[in-house]
Amino acid sequence: MAATAAESLARDLRRLVGDDGVLTGGQLTPYLVDATEPRGVRGRADALALPRNAEEVAAVVAYCYREQVAIVPRGGGTGFAGGAVADGGVLLALERLDRVLEMEPLRWRMRVEAGVTTRRVQQLARESGLRFPPDPGAPEQSQIGGNVATNAGGPHAFKYGVTGAFVMGLEAVVPPGEPLRLGGSTRKDVAGYDLLHLLVGSEGTLGVVTETTLRLIPAAEAAYPVLALLPDAEAAGLALEAALASGTVPAAVEYFDDLSWEIARRGFPAELPGGYVLICEADGSAAEAASGRDLLREALDEHALQLYAPTERAEIAALWRWREGVSFLVDAYRGGKLSEDIAVPLERLFDAVARTREIAARHGVECCSFGHGGDGNLHSCLLFDRGDEEARLRAEAAAQDLLGMAVELGGTISGEHGLGTLKNGWLRHQWSPAAVRLHEAVKRTFDPEGLMNPGKKLA
Amino acid sequence: MAATAAESLARDLRRLVGDDGVLTGGQLTPYLVDATEPRGVRGRADALALPRNAEEVAAVVAYCYREQVAIVPRGGGTGFAGGAVADGGVLLALERLDRVLEMEPLRWRMRVEAGVTTRRVQQLARESGLRFPPDPGAPEQSQIGGNVATNAGGPHAFKYGVTGAFVMGLEAVVPPGEPLRLGGSTRKDVAGYDLLHLLVGSEGTLGVVTETTLRLIPAAEAAYPVLALLPDAEAAGLALEAALASGTVPAAVEYFDDLSWEIARRGFPAELPGGYVLICEADGSAAEAASGRDLLREALDEHALQLYAPTERAEIAALWRWREGVSFLVDAYRGGKLSEDIAVPLERLFDAVARTREIAARHGVECCSFGHGGDGNLHSCLLFDRGDEEARLRAEAAAQDLLGMAVELGGTISGEHGLGTLKNGWLRHQWSPAAVRLHEAVKRTFDPEGLMNPGKKLA
Repeated sequence: MAATAAESLARDLRRLVGDDGVLTGGQLTPYLVDATEPRGVRGRADALALPRNAEEVAAVVAYCYREQVAIVPRGGGTGFAGGAVADGGVLLALERLDRVLEMEPLRWRMRVEAGVTTRRVQQLARESGLRFPPDPGAPEQSQIGGNVATNAGGPHAFKYGVTGAFVMGLEAVVPPGEPLRLGGSTRKDVAGYDLLHLLVGSEGTLGVVTETTLRLIPAAEAAYPVLALLPDAEAAGLALEAALASGTVPAAVEYFDDLSWEIARRGFPAELPGGYVLICEADGSAAEAASGRDLLREALDEHALQLYAPTERAEIAALWRWREGVSFLVDAYRGGKLSEDIAVPLERLFDAVARTREIAARHGVECCSFGHGGDGNLHSCLLFDRGDEEARLRAEAAAQDLLGMAVELGGTISGEHGLGTLKNGWLRHQWSPAAVRLHEAVKRTFDPEGLMNPGKKLA
Repeated sequence: MAATAAESLARDLRRLVGDDGVLTGGQLTPYLVDATEPRGVRGRADALALPRNAEEVAAVVAYCYREQVAIVPRGGGTGFAGGAVADGGVLLALERLDRVLEMEPLRWRMRVEAGVTTRRVQQLARESGLRFPPDPGAPEQSQIGGNVATNAGGPHAFKYGVTGAFVMGLEAVVPPGEPLRLGGSTRKDVAGYDLLHLLVGSEGTLGVVTETTLRLIPAAEAAYPVLALLPDAEAAGLALEAALASGTVPAAVEYFDDLSWEIARRGFPAELPGGYVLICEADGSAAEAASGRDLLREALDEHALQLYAPTERAEIAALWRWREGVSFLVDAYRGGKLSEDIAVPLERLFDAVARTREIAARHGVECCSFGHGGDGNLHSCLLFDRGDEEARLRAEAAAQDLLGMAVELGGTISGEHGLGTLKNGWLRHQWSPAAVRLHEAVKRTFDPEGLMNPGKKLA
């Protein structure tokens, strides 16, 4: 965009969102990347708008739609797929929409604007004896609007479901700048087509989420993790099956292959040897969590070299704090990391773990994987020295093969991170022709000019 | 349709689904109605096709689409909104697609064809120590494909969610006769837009569900109901709040106003006086269910005249059998019943109960209501003598007012029954203009010729 055009764009946006609501030039730098930065993904934008409310969001979308300018909605910028990285146009950051509009503890729900952080949502629920179960990483940075737009998951999705399962209501702005209100405070609603869940996970390509009403659940009184150290992948697979047959529903079932555990165990709150690892958790009332823990111990013990089942609150908190940081430990291991998010039917999990290794070996890249084992959701990491461009390209090639492998195993190219720009073109390998056709038709129906987060989530 | 045209249609269909797969004339009679029959709703159809598999479904849809003939998919015909009642065209009954394709107890899932009954799904799960929680009424007749197409609920949706929450995968046939496969055996998937949940609850207006992969959960070891008898609506409201604050998550929270209880208690397995009634249930491991029951007893006791909390398996089974039959008892009370399914934010439940009465009184009709209280979901029944056409019309007028009341209270015109034909035109009162526009655009996107279950789910 020519300098004068960019200036006139910024001037127009200032009229819509205030003088302090528009960033340009060097001010944009922190907003041009997300967690794909180590892969060399860096965007560009003509301006960034910081609307203060849904009306201003609508005004910006209407303006951009009229002027044929691309709109790239952006939450906390913690995504792993480049979904919030712009390639020109206007970045629309939701961070000033950070009001908690209603907290209704007796009714198990809250209504918040899109820019409220995930941590704040979790804390507000907790202060009322309630719980917002989705726990994707980086809760301090990530915003609930982004969680909704990506249908974010996390370890506790196994028992409780992903973000979409907790969205009762949603307000968004859709092209050409109209407010869209779906659902609300009613727990059941089959009146119209489920447009709400069409917006959930749409990665900003259909509209901009401005507000959401979240369903909460009573907090569990206790939650006890049980970590099983296993000799190999086969034993880990058997332990996973045993955990599912234990008679309790684990709240989470996380796995680590031997290298990811080797990397991550250095920060682990207890001294444990190497191996494959499964971490299950039992929660509920104090009695239920304790009996669930006993069932899980018994189920896992048959296959494990060693169990670690802390019961002290501080030890348990340390374990989950460690879990939140695993991704950073793996990042730091070689300096460069390319993390793929795939999911397969859960009985294929350790097939996929083994195939991840084969693929990496074929491309001459080191790799490890860990993730949400109960959901068959692997974070397969290709590791290389930061700055080694040649190795990064080998890792990128391996990443493409990982996607093909996921499809081959009857799984998905994305379990919880979305397609962003990185997985463009892959959906057509996973989906049937009619599904791809309808995916594209839905996009055109919502966004006929193709200006909402263009270049993302392409089939 | 002229006789010769109808004959030629039947002949063409026989070529697609076999000689024994086409019904015409008087043979159609049982297929022309659903549970709206007491409201005088009776359809007509030119022929009924009974395909044996998804390929035949696709062939029928392709044929009808080519010939511009309406297609009305039909499951068990137990719907309350006329969704499966045809107004000409071809009825497409799924009853011969009744195969259980995969039962995977270790992986907590099963794959079944659309015509398998809900009861069979529930029983198969139970035989493996698992559970398919959705429990809409009439499980012997209703088919899983219909449950998916209406996103059916039931008492236990309170804790576990409605049918859509258990659909991992879905196969459908969409215009102009293409197979559509969405999801599958993977527990998490954010690759494409959530077309799966767009099909769920679409009442056959976007496509025909032919197969579904269902998520199951481990069966609870025990489940204990606690029935509270309450002096009035106010006490019932307080008891409902107390149940939600009890510290346990009830598996179900059912309510009955005084008249529905008066009608239904005659068939109740224990002798109890009149009043308002709340039935909560605690489930889980034996210990957890027992402690949940104690918490519920304590919470409800403060407001109740009397509690009934059976602990014997036979007594508990009798209670739930009675619950399944309540709708029939209310049907029988005056011979004529018009049942509306609305839902409101749960704190407005007893407002809605009271307003149901006011509306009925204004129209000179007797009424009662009961339903899924924890979900704010009322089945508001307008009662009249069968055959009293004038009273039926008054009831129909009152029903329209009930829908307006639901919208006014921030609720929905349908909690779990769908729109069918009966609620056509009401969605635009509930939804914002952009939502209505997109609802209609989605319909055109899937079904450009408007031949899929025409005249249903209209905004």
